[in-house]
Amino acid sequence: MKLKRGLIQVYTGNGKGKTTAAWGQAMRASGQGLKVGIIQFFKGKGSGEAKTAKKLNLDVYFFCPVHPYFGGKRKKLEKECREGLIFAKKIIQSKKYDLIILDEINIAMKDELIEVNEVLDLIKNKPKEVELILTGRGAPKKIIESAGLVTEMKEVKHPYQKGIKGRRGIEY
Amino acid sequence: MKLKRGLIQVYTGNGKGKTTAAWGQAMRASGQGLKVGIIQFFKGKGSGEAKTAKKLNLDVYFFCPVHPYFGGKRKKLEKECREGLIFAKKIIQSKKYDLIILDEINIAMKDELIEVNEVLDLIKNKPKEVELILTGRGAPKKIIESAGLVTEMKEVKHPYQKGIKGRRGIEY
Repeated sequence: MKLKRGLIQVYTGNGKGKTTAAWGQAMRASGQGLKVGIIQFFKGKGSGEAKTAKKLNLDVYFFCPVHPYFGGKRKKLEKECREGLIFAKKIIQSKKYDLIILDEINIAMKDELIEVNEVLDLIKNKPKEVELILTGRGAPKKIIESAGLVTEMKEVKHPYQKGIKGRRGIEY
Repeated sequence: MKLKRGLIQVYTGNGKGKTTAAWGQAMRASGQGLKVGIIQFFKGKGSGEAKTAKKLNLDVYFFCPVHPYFGGKRKKLEKECREGLIFAKKIIQSKKYDLIILDEINIAMKDELIEVNEVLDLIKNKPKEVELILTGRGAPKKIIESAGLVTEMKEVKHPYQKGIKGRRGIEY
């Protein structure tokens, strides 16, 4: 199956549910016969979703596995994010995938590890039938303007507020 | 694996991403060895996520497959939702699952097909180690108060605004 018209979806905001919404979308798309590729920034291979992806028809690619928040040298982060972006362009243009998720790419732009204009270029030049999803807090205004679907995940309540730490299987 | 402490998560609001966030969470939890059960209100078995669930270690149960919006006799809808709720109580108490998703149950409360107090009872009496997720727009105030994690999916932009209809693999 092919999409007639692929849109740009953006999930941003401070609340929980951005990455899970993207992966849930991958699960939905895969179930309907779409081919899904996921480019994962700032996360390692140990997440529950990455483990499940192995059992499904989902290709996951990892770039820049250390989140800027946890340190990592800036030059190295920039280089790895750039490699991710170049790879993203390549697979978007290849038309191998109907849906491509750029998980946490908004963070890379917010933290100025990649330039907003480069991502805008990637969006503008995508093949018509490819759907793109960009996630991560702090999506730049220009990205929001270029998207067809934008949801802000707004934190109403979060257990971090009560000091509960990230739990395996729930937060990662 | 078991959770030490299961919370109540609520995904509500008008934006896209509530159901997909819940299913993405299911995917994550399943990948980390948690046992997941999903009770699906107002949706049939044809969704992409339900198809993918078959390939995974996920049990999905369907109740009240016709959404109130699409008609369906009120008495029948009430009866079927009630059956779903009774079943939910049963599997929550059985401790068979670490994570249980009640997808679109907020709609059932909003449309007064089930009573908010019954769902509150179910929440209050859940075993400590079971995590519950409730999705759907219009989550009642009392439900939000009882939850540990609440995200409002706020619609910033949606293609429906431009007249683009639901697409297989993306919206269902």
